[in-house]
Order: sequence, then structure tokens, then C-alpha cells
Amino acid sequence: MIENFQQLIQIVQACEKKTIVVSAAEDSYVIKACFEAHKLGLADFILVGNEPEITEICINNSYSSAFKIYHSSDHATAVKDSVNLIKSGEANAIMKGHLHTSVFLKALLNKEQGLNSSNSFISHVSLFEKEYGSGLQLLTDGAMPIEPDLNTKKLIIENAVKLASRLGYTKPKVALLSAIETINPQIKDTIDAAILSKMADRGQISGALVDGPFALDNAISMQSAQHKGITGPVAGQADILVVPNLQVGNVLHKSITYIAHKNIATAVIGAEVPVVLTSRTDSIESKVLTIALACYLSK
Amino acid sequence: MIENFQQLIQIVQACEKKTIVVSAAEDSYVIKACFEAHKLGLADFILVGNEPEITEICINNSYSSAFKIYHSSDHATAVKDSVNLIKSGEANAIMKGHLHTSVFLKALLNKEQGLNSSNSFISHVSLFEKEYGSGLQLLTDGAMPIEPDLNTKKLIIENAVKLASRLGYTKPKVALLSAIETINPQIKDTIDAAILSKMADRGQISGALVDGPFALDNAISMQSAQHKGITGPVAGQADILVVPNLQVGNVLHKSITYIAHKNIATAVIGAEVPVVLTSRTDSIESKVLTIALACYLSK
Repeated sequence: MIENFQQLIQIVQACEKKTIVVSAAEDSYVIKACFEAHKLGLADFILVGNEPEITEICINNSYSSAFKIYHSSDHATAVKDSVNLIKSGEANAIMKGHLHTSVFLKALLNKEQGLNSSNSFISHVSLFEKEYGSGLQLLTDGAMPIEPDLNTKKLIIENAVKLASRLGYTKPKVALLSAIETINPQIKDTIDAAILSKMADRGQISGALVDGPFALDNAISMQSAQHKGITGPVAGQADILVVPNLQVGNVLHKSITYIAHKNIATAVIGAEVPVVLTSRTDSIESKVLTIALACYLSK
Repeated sequence: MIENFQQLIQIVQACEKKTIVVSAAEDSYVIKACFEAHKLGLADFILVGNEPEITEICINNSYSSAFKIYHSSDHATAVKDSVNLIKSGEANAIMKGHLHTSVFLKALLNKEQGLNSSNSFISHVSLFEKEYGSGLQLLTDGAMPIEPDLNTKKLIIENAVKLASRLGYTKPKVALLSAIETINPQIKDTIDAAILSKMADRGQISGALVDGPFALDNAISMQSAQHKGITGPVAGQADILVVPNLQVGNVLHKSITYIAHKNIATAVIGAEVPVVLTSRTDSIESKVLTIALACYLSK
């Protein structure tokens, strides 16, 4: 079981080095992250995109010898070329460079020409070190579906459980978050939480302990759960936090980053290979951790 | 302008001491908070409720000489007696003890017999020290309305602006939060944010600079706002964060408390006198700050 980010880095450093292809790599933030990850021995990189711009960034920063660079005429071509490098086995994971997330994901997840031939459900997970107890805390989904319905929530849970299990968490504890820990028919996500908990009890969601609704505090802090008299195997010790909608996930991810100043790795789950999706405003540490996680997950 | 909690405490200590009446005070957490606030010279307290239980808690903790104690036969009577102490001028603010928040608020906000004769809109504000720049950050409303409609959001903003102005913030900067900073018709709160911003532009919300939607990071961090190219007088320097619904407000309040470990004061705005509403799991520091804020706001 991966207990913390230090351990994740060490495991990746000790394994055979993976190659990550970067689509539309002409972005100094992205190339800096690749350089730092390369310096740590985490991965090799192929930078695909506007070759003159990429070369200029590399020269200006003395990154010159670190990367292979392939020219592509435009963003769409860059993604297509990157996918081909994955398909030919030259790269193990793909990273978004200087192009719109929606353009990148659309090309990537195209059933015929992308990296999702089985048309799997794709979701996003944020990971950070737990604040209470040891281990990693998974948070999903603060990036993709706006108002997930019950079935989408089930798929989000299953993707996160798959990821947790890859990280060595057998039977991860899944907490379904809301504003309160009781059922209130006026708050739809408390109803969804009740239903999803029972679905898990009946084996309709497997490989995890699922419970909810919880407010954030009684999901992560045992003291807080005990104060409220909430029992069960998930209360106070959740491994996976499932948010009710995009807004809650986004504000939680952002407050952990910008107010609690924790490093956050992210993962896109469901594609055929790991996908590295970082944002410009992510810290360099968070970008490197996201790259390390992609290397860990690439087989 | 109150810049931080230390300054708030000092101002209250320097002013004439206020008296707070506690309804159903038979709770060791509540009495401990009162004792600490009293020790700091912030307020005097009248403890109303089950007199034998209150006395036992006081004796067991050597708080004996600190408080006046009045007996009331049950919770409803305790609130009624507390309101009468406010009306007779013996107390300046009211604090919730060991009873359900809904019971307490219902009795308190009763138009005829409570402390809301003008039937004002009541809302909840959390306050913490800003993470970027100096000053206090107000967050509303993570406690009361579940899915506020446009008009309710306007009232929530107006209450928070009133509070900010009492704290010396002239023309406070109000950021309307969502998951993203662009308008997306599929995300209703981005639409509401656009409408509320324009209402403020046209003078329908006054005394404040209102803008949105923002994601949390570009509301509070100038660097983040600049990264995204978001301009205007609110971006990156919001004083007041208005959340789209209860779930977002609750998770943000909780993550600031339980993951970022910041102290949070809270205020209930709209009643005739300040209302102290603390929860058992609040830290003692946060409870004392909430008491200090009530003293500051009581005239």
C-alpha cells in the first residue's frame, strides 16, 4: 500500500523508466515539470508539437539534452501523433501540453482513433496525503461530470476503487459527501448516498466499503465522527471521498491546494494508458507527483 | 478595518464589557468556551437552563464564581427566558447551548416572541484570516439555505456586506463562487453569478463590488487570477466569498477547519442582537472568536 508521496516517488525511481509523450508541448510550465521529473529519474519524455517553440524553451532553460522532440503542425495533429507513439509502444503515458483540455480529451478518448477503444467511463481523481492517519486520500470527481446522476456516481466510485486498488488499498473505504450526515429529502445527494450505500451492501458495487452521506469532517476525522455518534467502518477513516457534484469537488480541491497548501497529484481513470492532465497553476511539486503517479500506473 | 482576529480580540477587550446569555447552558463544551472568553475579559455570561447540571459542570471545573446562573425547566423555556433577558437589557447577545439548532433558531426568530420583530432575512457567515493578503475573509452561506434562489442569494450577499461594513470594510469585494470562472448554461450558479454581478452594476445591490463566477483560486489569489487572465476589482482579492449552495459552503468551511486548520469565527446576521452559534466540534479558539465577534457586533 502506498502510504505517502515520498514512497510513490521511490517506487517509480526503482522501476524500469517509462516514457511520457507530451501533446502540444510548447509551454514553458509543462516543459519545466517534465525537466524536474526527468531530473528525479521518474520518466523520459517525448515532446510533440511546435518544434521551433519547444526548442527555444529548451535552449533558454538549458533543458536541451533531456528530451526527444517531434514536430507536429497543429494541436489536433500533435494529439494524433502522440496517440500513435503510444500505439507503437514508444511511449507509455500521455500528457497534455498547451492546448484546451476539451480538445485534448476529445481526441484522446475518441473510440476509433484515440486511447479508449472499449469506450470506458472516464473520470478524474485528486490524491493528497491524509490529514488524519496515514495513507493517501482520493477525491473524485472535481473535474468532469457537472451533476452526476446515480449511475454516473456508481461509475465514478468504481473508477476510484480501481485506482485505490492499484495503489494497494484492498477494500478501500468510500465516503459519499454531502453537507450533512443524515438523510434530508430536500438534499438530493443525501438520498443518492443512501441508495449507493445500499447498492454496495447488496454487492452492486464491489471491492469497497461504501457509506454516506457524510459531512467532510466526519468522513476524515475519527474524533469528529465520534462527536456526532456516527459509527461504521468508513466514518472518520475514508480513503476515497466522493463529492456530489463538480462545484463541491472543485472547491474542495482548490481549498486543499490554495488554503491548506497540500500537494495534489491527479489521475484520469478509464483510458488505455495513464493520462497526465496538469493545470498551469498547479505547483511544480504537484505536477511532478502527477507524472510520478502516471508512471506508477503504466504497465 | 479589522485586519485579523488578534485585533478583534483587543478591540473587544478595550470596550465596555458585554453580557451574553446562554440558552440551555448545561453543556461542558459550551461552558468551557464561556469560561475562556470570560478569562480573556471579553464578556460576562448568564447561564440559563438546568441549574443543577450547570452548577455541577461549573464546580467540577472550578468555574464557580465566573457566571450568573438562572434555572429554566426545559429547552423552550430556556430560550424564552434568554430572550426576555435580552429584551430587559440584562444581556446583549444570545448563545446556543445544549439544544438542537433548529429548536433554538425557531424560538429565537419567532416574529412575535423572538428577536426578529422586523422579520428580517437571517443568514450565516464564517470568517477566517485571509490566506493571501491581509484582512478577514467572509464566507456565506454554508449553514442555512440549501439551494438558494436568485433572490435569496441577493439577501445573503446583502447580509454579508452589512457585516463586512460593520468590520470596517467599505465597498467590500464580493466573489460569487462556482467550479469555473466562465458562464456555462449547464451550471446554473454561473448564470446566477452573471445576473447578480449585473444587478450590482445597476445598483440593485449596493455598498459592494460584486463579480462572478469565480473558481475559489482566482477569487482569493491574484497570481491565480492573473494566470487565467481574469481582471476586475474583485478577482484575486475577494473579501466575501458567496457559495452557490449549502454543500459547497459546508465542504469549504470544513476543509478550512479540518485540513487547513484555520480558526473560524461565525456570525448569524439578521436578528436584533448577535447570535452565537457554535458546534461541539469547533475548536475552543474558534468558539472564543465567535463570542468576541458577537461582543464586537453588539451595540
